[in-house]
Amino acid sequence: MTLNVYLSGEIHTDWRNQIIESCREQKLDIAFTSANTDHESSDAAGDVLGPEENGFWRDHKSAKVNAIRTKTLIEKSDVAIIRFGDKYKQWNAAFDAGYCAALGKPYITLHAEEIIHPLKEVDAAAMAWATTTDQVVEILKYVVNDL
Amino acid sequence: MTLNVYLSGEIHTDWRNQIIESCREQKLDIAFTSANTDHESSDAAGDVLGPEENGFWRDHKSAKVNAIRTKTLIEKSDVAIIRFGDKYKQWNAAFDAGYCAALGKPYITLHAEEIIHPLKEVDAAAMAWATTTDQVVEILKYVVNDL
Amino acid sequence: MTLNVYLSGEIHTDWRNQIIESCREQKLDIAFTSANTDHESSDAAGDVLGPEENGFWRDHKSAKVNAIRTKTLIEKSDVAIIRFGDKYKQWNAAFDAGYCAALGKPYITLHAEEIIHPLKEVDAAAMAWATTTDQVVEILKYVVNDL
Amino acid sequence: MTLNVYLSGEIHTDWRNQIIESCREQKLDIAFTSANTDHESSDAAGDVLGPEENGFWRDHKSAKVNAIRTKTLIEKSDVAIIRFGDKYKQWNAAFDAGYCAALGKPYITLHAEEIIHPLKEVDAAAMAWATTTDQVVEILKYVVNDL
Amino acid sequence: MTLNVYLSGEIHTDWRNQIIESCREQKLDIAFTSANTDHESSDAAGDVLGPEENGFWRDHKSAKVNAIRTKTLIEKSDVAIIRFGDKYKQWNAAFDAGYCAALGKPYITLHAEEIIHPLKEVDAAAMAWATTTDQVVEILKYVVNDL
Amino acid sequence: MTLNVYLSGEIHTDWRNQIIESCREQKLDIAFTSANTDHESSDAAGDVLGPEENGFWRDHKSAKVNAIRTKTLIEKSDVAIIRFGDKYKQWNAAFDAGYCAALGKPYITLHAEEIIHPLKEVDAAAMAWATTTDQVVEILKYVVNDL
Amino acid sequence: MTLNVYLSGEIHTDWRNQIIESCREQKLDIAFTSANTDHESSDAAGDVLGPEENGFWRDHKSAKVNAIRTKTLIEKSDVAIIRFGDKYKQWNAAFDAGYCAALGKPYITLHAEEIIHPLKEVDAAAMAWATTTDQVVEILKYVVNDL
Amino acid sequence: MTLNVYLSGEIHTDWRNQIIESCREQKLDIAFTSANTDHESSDAAGDVLGPEENGFWRDHKSAKVNAIRTKTLIEKSDVAIIRFGDKYKQWNAAFDAGYCAALGKPYITLHAEEIIHPLKEVDAAAMAWATTTDQVVEILKYVVNDL
Repeated sequence: MTLNVYLSGEIHTDWRNQIIESCREQKLDIAFTSANTDHESSDAAGDVLGPEENGFWRDHKSAKVNAIRTKTLIEKSDVAIIRFGDKYKQWNAAFDAGYCAALGKPYITLHAEEIIHPLKEVDAAAMAWATTTDQVVEILKYVVNDL
Repeated sequence: MTLNVYLSGEIHTDWRNQIIESCREQKLDIAFTSANTDHESSDAAGDVLGPEENGFWRDHKSAKVNAIRTKTLIEKSDVAIIRFGDKYKQWNAAFDAGYCAALGKPYITLHAEEIIHPLKEVDAAAMAWATTTDQVVEILKYVVNDL
Repeated sequence: MTLNVYLSGEIHTDWRNQIIESCREQKLDIAFTSANTDHESSDAAGDVLGPEENGFWRDHKSAKVNAIRTKTLIEKSDVAIIRFGDKYKQWNAAFDAGYCAALGKPYITLHAEEIIHPLKEVDAAAMAWATTTDQVVEILKYVVNDL
Repeated sequence: MTLNVYLSGEIHTDWRNQIIESCREQKLDIAFTSANTDHESSDAAGDVLGPEENGFWRDHKSAKVNAIRTKTLIEKSDVAIIRFGDKYKQWNAAFDAGYCAALGKPYITLHAEEIIHPLKEVDAAAMAWATTTDQVVEILKYVVNDL
Repeated sequence: MTLNVYLSGEIHTDWRNQIIESCREQKLDIAFTSANTDHESSDAAGDVLGPEENGFWRDHKSAKVNAIRTKTLIEKSDVAIIRFGDKYKQWNAAFDAGYCAALGKPYITLHAEEIIHPLKEVDAAAMAWATTTDQVVEILKYVVNDL
Repeated sequence: MTLNVYLSGEIHTDWRNQIIESCREQKLDIAFTSANTDHESSDAAGDVLGPEENGFWRDHKSAKVNAIRTKTLIEKSDVAIIRFGDKYKQWNAAFDAGYCAALGKPYITLHAEEIIHPLKEVDAAAMAWATTTDQVVEILKYVVNDL
Repeated sequence: MTLNVYLSGEIHTDWRNQIIESCREQKLDIAFTSANTDHESSDAAGDVLGPEENGFWRDHKSAKVNAIRTKTLIEKSDVAIIRFGDKYKQWNAAFDAGYCAALGKPYITLHAEEIIHPLKEVDAAAMAWATTTDQVVEILKYVVNDL
Repeated sequence: MTLNVYLSGEIHTDWRNQIIESCREQKLDIAFTSANTDHESSDAAGDVLGPEENGFWRDHKSAKVNAIRTKTLIEKSDVAIIRFGDKYKQWNAAFDAGYCAALGKPYITLHAEEIIHPLKEVDAAAMAWATTTDQVVEILKYVVNDL
């Protein structure tokens, strides 16, 4: 059985690769998916549908095109890892957490201790809170052990 | 038919009362609910269950007690209004938006133009984006007209 | 027990009132709801949120505001009546039929014999096809008899 | 991961093949399905069950046999493309859109600018509106990128 | 709290009235609903929609009109009582049992010992098997005690 | 795509084999499943769990063991074929039909014209009514065409 | 809005009354329901359906009759309180907890510190763990505050 | 078709291996999964996330990490076997049973006759009660026969 893991959130650090590489080295049977993590290309996802003068509608179109992908991948995943960095609003990560919570999809948060308080609702519905990618890998390894 | 509206998000300005009062004045048949909006009392919601030395667990207990209320009220609501102010992380508001989206529960966002870009995923799944409480009231009035 | 009946589709003839009036005269315990049936006001439902130069986005905003109402009412209804007239595209009526079908919500179509063929998929998932409002009333009367 | 895409709507132009061929040339990992797109054979789908004098029942039987296929394929798909041409009523396409909307299944509409207004409810629940098959292919390519 | 009880099956004996009367005498807070139990009127439920030469279609139309009522009432009920008599096929009663089973709706069967064997699948998914209306009343009384 | 077809009902004639063989000869990509169709072995399915003096409980145990299989297979199937012969009560077939109906699982009935009337509720929720196994095969062939 | 609270578990101490009385005194708008808490009458719930020589089947019949009540009440409740005492197996309480967890129904456990370890899976899915009925009342009071 | 079977409950005897080995010897197409059955490692599942002074929180973290695995595996299984031994509280096994019951997932209990009475609610929702692993294997063999 392959475990499907969706990686949500921060796109400015290397956390996704760290998790993926470490799991690969340990030959864990895990398939990772993710939103498009290239910021510019993600913001431009809807541009092919025609130009917009109004920034709101450009964002709207791109966000919906991205949602075709993220919604599908989250629903097909078994577990999500939701990462909050120390910068930016990252409301999409919290949105994904709420989406998972309503679906009963287990998720693990990955964030520093400094932001425990503002993330308390997100953490309250999580199955685990990790501060390092190594911890995430250890938990995933534990979950798929002997499967 | 009474429309059940859940008011989620920012607790530092008067937006809830503005909406509620305006709807009452116009005698709209709408019942409003909300999380506990008193910051200190909300943070202390779980304290009755015993003291915690570790801040994470104090937050955890309170967030879960609050979630008994919010989860129940969101699921019983017909529409949610989700407000983002200009301060703080407000991840709980984005979490509620994702929760609504996964349930297929319609929601309206209420926020300033400055934060369109970081809220694009949240707005993409919303039924409307408003910048003033008056706009929200107008939409609610339209929704319940003649019911 | 009150039966909740949603009236969807054509807004250019008097079919809604005929059904509602006839049921009232016979004192049937039925509550009727409907989308906003005023064409101009329906097209302008989103205008309060700000002007749009692009017709697509004006329509988009209004259609979503209308959907807050229609989605909520369809999901709360026990039965829908879906009316197709002899003019216009009326894709929203077919959309509502598909929405009901996926929810397992029973619906009755009301349309002339001339359009049987293009409506065959819509009728295939319906519980009945009526050609007159009197027939619809007779069926509703039968459904609520002795409740 | 193979993306399952259901192609719904117009059967009188070559749009399905354009999308399928272009995706194949680019080796995108996408599986396409569709209703029976042969008009005569589709209308005759139920004839094997015995002749009907009444046109309504012939249509009814064929539409239901077709629905065994379409309902199954839509529910198994990840995304639907819903095409509206410039002729005919095409209520089955709008029905499929409503069906997808109620299931929370993402769909993309494909239609000319001329019919924006009558399709506003259908577009309001869509994840994207495209006017050319190239745009559809670009979005699908974006969605499956790196999967 | 009122318990909603749906009475399904045999229409040729007085079992419904026996249960209803006994519950009323004991002032149990139970609301009973049922399909149309008048055989002729039930068979003619669809006749208002126009005559059919073919018996299959007459039955089809009536059965669907009846299903608007039964489907709605079963889904709104808390418990169903499903009665099998000693005559006729009564496939509609077994159909209702399967419908309840798939919904997770509890039901009680009411039938004589002679037909235990052919009803074993229906009884296997039931919460109780009763042979007399008095037993059914006792169980309902037990269920609503102190509510 | 393999179509999963569940074959429910009568076990005293050769209808299952006729359908399976004909589909195999035509190389249709269909996987068939079924309840245990050996009457004696089916009745004895629960005997391994210990003897019962009371016939009701022997039946009960066997019916539940059989239900582990049938419930699982019906839920995994895409379409069910439900066969009613001219003998016996066959309430389990009608139960399966109701189960499918509540799940929104499409099914085709297979029975002679003589029993149209008592099966009208079962047929009303079916996607097709066939009288011969050849008709069933033709429909299945149509459904999987080009998949 | 009345909050519906289901009280599950231990029947040998006075915890239910303590919670109910305290909430009444404080005029909290809460409706409490419960399984039959009279041990002997609960064990005999199915006896009206006829005697059983085999203890397993007597228990089976009674447990199912009780389940008609408990299943219905749990599904209608907004929150459950699940109490574990210091005696007996109380597997039904843990069963109710698992049932709530799968439904996404929030529950609060009420038990002494001594049994934290064997209850860790049950507590892991709970929204709160209380050790006294006063704590439960405080949380319920918090949840319904201002509703 | 591979049948997915989840093995829940007691970890102090060899029952899992007995079932798995016997099924392998008979070449039954069954895939077995299970929670982590190593007691110490299971209790320590969350330790990687950091030490806890408070026993409740250590248990809480480990139980949630374990739940990522068990919840996922139960939901992916077709049938669960739930074993109760003669020692310990085993509330997690009863919790799993309730979880399965709410999902409509069939399960078989495996326990001695001595604990029939306290397990009556758990057995009431089960599809079978077995006392030996051989009986479980026989039933599984029956379920997958000819698939």
